[in-house]
Amino acid sequence: MTISKLFYSMVVFITLIFLYSCSSDDQPHRSLSDPLPSWNESTAKTNIMEFVKSVTTEGGDFYIAPVDRVVVFDNDGTLWTEQPLPNQIYFTMDRIRQMALTDPGLASEMPYRAVIENDTAELAKFQPEDVITIVGKVNAAKSLEDFDKVVNAWIDTAQHPRYGRRFDQTVYAPMLELLEYLRSHDFQIFIVSGGSVEFMRAFAQRVYGISTDHVIGSRMQLETVRDGDSIDVERKPQFAFNDDKDGKVESIAEFIGRRPIMVVGNSDGDLAMMEYTSQQDRRTLEVFVLHNDGTREYDYADGVIAGSLVEGMRVAGEREWTIVNMKTDWKTIFGE
Amino acid sequence: MTISKLFYSMVVFITLIFLYSCSSDDQPHRSLSDPLPSWNESTAKTNIMEFVKSVTTEGGDFYIAPVDRVVVFDNDGTLWTEQPLPNQIYFTMDRIRQMALTDPGLASEMPYRAVIENDTAELAKFQPEDVITIVGKVNAAKSLEDFDKVVNAWIDTAQHPRYGRRFDQTVYAPMLELLEYLRSHDFQIFIVSGGSVEFMRAFAQRVYGISTDHVIGSRMQLETVRDGDSIDVERKPQFAFNDDKDGKVESIAEFIGRRPIMVVGNSDGDLAMMEYTSQQDRRTLEVFVLHNDGTREYDYADGVIAGSLVEGMRVAGEREWTIVNMKTDWKTIFGE
Repeated sequence: MTISKLFYSMVVFITLIFLYSCSSDDQPHRSLSDPLPSWNESTAKTNIMEFVKSVTTEGGDFYIAPVDRVVVFDNDGTLWTEQPLPNQIYFTMDRIRQMALTDPGLASEMPYRAVIENDTAELAKFQPEDVITIVGKVNAAKSLEDFDKVVNAWIDTAQHPRYGRRFDQTVYAPMLELLEYLRSHDFQIFIVSGGSVEFMRAFAQRVYGISTDHVIGSRMQLETVRDGDSIDVERKPQFAFNDDKDGKVESIAEFIGRRPIMVVGNSDGDLAMMEYTSQQDRRTLEVFVLHNDGTREYDYADGVIAGSLVEGMRVAGEREWTIVNMKTDWKTIFGE
Repeated sequence: MTISKLFYSMVVFITLIFLYSCSSDDQPHRSLSDPLPSWNESTAKTNIMEFVKSVTTEGGDFYIAPVDRVVVFDNDGTLWTEQPLPNQIYFTMDRIRQMALTDPGLASEMPYRAVIENDTAELAKFQPEDVITIVGKVNAAKSLEDFDKVVNAWIDTAQHPRYGRRFDQTVYAPMLELLEYLRSHDFQIFIVSGGSVEFMRAFAQRVYGISTDHVIGSRMQLETVRDGDSIDVERKPQFAFNDDKDGKVESIAEFIGRRPIMVVGNSDGDLAMMEYTSQQDRRTLEVFVLHNDGTREYDYADGVIAGSLVEGMRVAGEREWTIVNMKTDWKTIFGE
């Protein structure tokens, strides 16, 4: 080997080390490929990518600093399936039956008896108060950490009735890509959902990569309880806040404290926070997920108990908000 | 120049580029110098640095993942001065006088009249309800964004009565270093304070580098208000939550949703959240700032209206919590 060949080899070698080392900063390489591979080319995909580019381009007219890139996602029907019933309902029913094993009195007490015996006639008569009573019974906890374990033990074993797989595998694969895409562009991602905050927080980190303080939901009463030197927070069975419709707007103000620039939802319950997001001088993006794929998922036009989108579609049409057409925009629903 | 000299030069040159490029990841270099230069060598400084090292050393017995490195700071008396009165009181009094200019009726109405006329005899008789009434009057807002501007306009001009400089210059310089030190070790920093959340959020980002969603405080009632197509969140004058003592523990559970591993406070109002933090199987750090420097700041032993630390010192002594001795541990208070 001559000196010049050695020289050439060393330069190549050191340059490779240099390139390799710097590639541990992940963004430059990823941006060369499609960040949303499960999304077909569509108006929705174009709108999302064009929006992200415009608010993250320094020096551009629409640039927004990372700290203000707040994006809010609904959960049920937006990040994971909510049919034939919202997943939390299955957890709640399973948990009541589990609690009855050590508290046999539950089996003779309404509304728990209807759940334990799967008495469909009685279940059909349930009023919102009955659901609140049952959710309160289940979600009450002597310690927040204990409840986390109960939820995660359920997620590790329970199966969705239609898909026959774990509930955390009913998460929409294109939405996981969207979360990662936004995260890689320094968006501050929050969940603002009607589901119970304590239920969602138990799995949001491992399933969505979203930490507990970025998960906002419906809430029960909390109380600080002392026992000798010990201090803990108990969750009481009383309902404190319904995080739906206008409640979502109040939650954004109370928990986040600044207005989102992007919001993703799928039902009329998300309309208020979309309006709140849209009414500002900065560029914003409002996205509705439209459930119209009865084959791979659910066509809500066939009738649904939760998640209907009627008024939201009317407003979205008027204001040219973005509609994700699940049937045609997503190559896969769950990443099969 | 011979080939071998050229070869040598090229290797040096490329290696320098390589080293320089990788130094844009800031931590390796900073760790070589003292990250807390305003802190004298002391038990407090050693405890803090040893704790941070132990929970951030991968593979170590006490390692904690970044997402769980939650640290909670009180604000008044911990991050900035709270004497002779908490800074928010000066804002509130200034703002009432400002509001009276466009709402002259205030000047004849108690408790506002006492503030507007600086009637010290009447002010001395104030009950907690009077303070709540006045804070409610000031903090109520048609739009959260408008209130932010009011607070920031005040901070840009108002002066602390003793120090004769802006209130955001009564922030403790050693604490800004501590925030930056923890941030550089991927801690998740929150403020949990008795002050009004809306007041603190207005300046926390620019003064502390802490975003609004990481600021938790006492809270007023919120309400979503519609006017035609417009939707906004108004803050009503009614008090909703007192973020002090046990309230701080409930706020941590409600807003953060996971237990801190480190807490920094300065008064008995912080004791409950210190106990809550200390009672877990992981390694934790509890820090009280002791105000004992009557020359450079205030010696609370001389008597104070807000911020007394008595029961907290007793418990801290029993449990060997960390005490920051302002007089001897800090080289500078405000970074003069």
